[in-house]
Amino acid sequence: MSDYKISTLNKIKRGPDRATYDVAAINNILDAGFIAQVAYIYDGKAITIPMSYARINNKVYVHGSLKNRMLLALLEAKEASMTIMHLDGLVLARSAFHHSVNYRSATLFGPIKKVDAKEEKDKILEAIVDQMIPDRWHTLRAISEKERNATLILELTIETASAKIRAEGAIDEKPDEALPIWAGVIPIKQIALTPESDHLLASNVSIPTHVNSYYEKNR
Amino acid sequence: MSDYKISTLNKIKRGPDRATYDVAAINNILDAGFIAQVAYIYDGKAITIPMSYARINNKVYVHGSLKNRMLLALLEAKEASMTIMHLDGLVLARSAFHHSVNYRSATLFGPIKKVDAKEEKDKILEAIVDQMIPDRWHTLRAISEKERNATLILELTIETASAKIRAEGAIDEKPDEALPIWAGVIPIKQIALTPESDHLLASNVSIPTHVNSYYEKNR
Repeated sequence: MSDYKISTLNKIKRGPDRATYDVAAINNILDAGFIAQVAYIYDGKAITIPMSYARINNKVYVHGSLKNRMLLALLEAKEASMTIMHLDGLVLARSAFHHSVNYRSATLFGPIKKVDAKEEKDKILEAIVDQMIPDRWHTLRAISEKERNATLILELTIETASAKIRAEGAIDEKPDEALPIWAGVIPIKQIALTPESDHLLASNVSIPTHVNSYYEKNR
Repeated sequence: MSDYKISTLNKIKRGPDRATYDVAAINNILDAGFIAQVAYIYDGKAITIPMSYARINNKVYVHGSLKNRMLLALLEAKEASMTIMHLDGLVLARSAFHHSVNYRSATLFGPIKKVDAKEEKDKILEAIVDQMIPDRWHTLRAISEKERNATLILELTIETASAKIRAEGAIDEKPDEALPIWAGVIPIKQIALTPESDHLLASNVSIPTHVNSYYEKNR
């Protein structure tokens, strides 16, 4: 794998030692989540909204209603930027100044286009469901023509990107290290709790393997 | 308490039954976190970056280096928007179309100004540390003049805002309910793991009450 090209747009100036432009490292961050913060401009103002996504190779897909204000704004802008962040810990130093968090965050930039072809739309919707929880799509009732037509799908080609990763303890000023103040890390993790079956579920339907696997992997 | 005024800027059109403009409900979402996704415009492009924040009454504060590109862009724009989101569950329906997530998300809009007064800056930095982990600030080495001067603090006055909250099970098409497909919710939670003391910690410094309390409350 290789690095994304560095430009004034994606170059990280604050804490450059924590920056990476490596395609594989950035893909790892994308594949560890399914909610992106997508930025758009409305009436001259920058706004950010969380959206589910899927990555397929160097493309990231988001979807929504045909009338979704953000998706329509992105389509008009012909480009988009989004950030995916995972919080991994509170970094508690001996001074306020050196408090920080451990995290993995990737910001993507690139051109946007609408996806229209039926087979492509279905493949992308499959990827979006399975990015949220692997192996679910093939267990579902097939998507209808009406549902497909009511869904707007946008494709972002990752033209450039950057990521920042912090994964270490507190870093204090040397003279502060001897102070009688507790410093350290409180690791933070997102977990799954016991799956709750729908109350309308037929009594012969048990929790499927992909749901149990997700729970076991994330509990 | 009251509601934020509804305008074309903050009005929620998709899923309006899940929308709220209630000040107290929005403050609850803000107070449950400490990382905001802040949107800004750079070179005509909308970008979003995660930042720690603190809320004091109807103001939200973010901080960073004096040269932070985003903070300087917000200062120039004289206004900002940010989103705080908590993921509460995967909502797994019988059809792809009705998959969703349970979440609490608030988006804020308002004017931005720089905070300069020394006492005010210290009060805000205290709020930022204590929003991350309550009751920590007063245990820390006092902030130095140099550190204070190197920190740029911006104040967003929440002029208007909106929130969306989804907290329920899967909602399928009526005819799908009888299908032999599992539907339900996998609750998602952000938890704290056992605090890890800094390896340079003097042997007589034990884990303080505020750290143990945070862990007990979030484990």
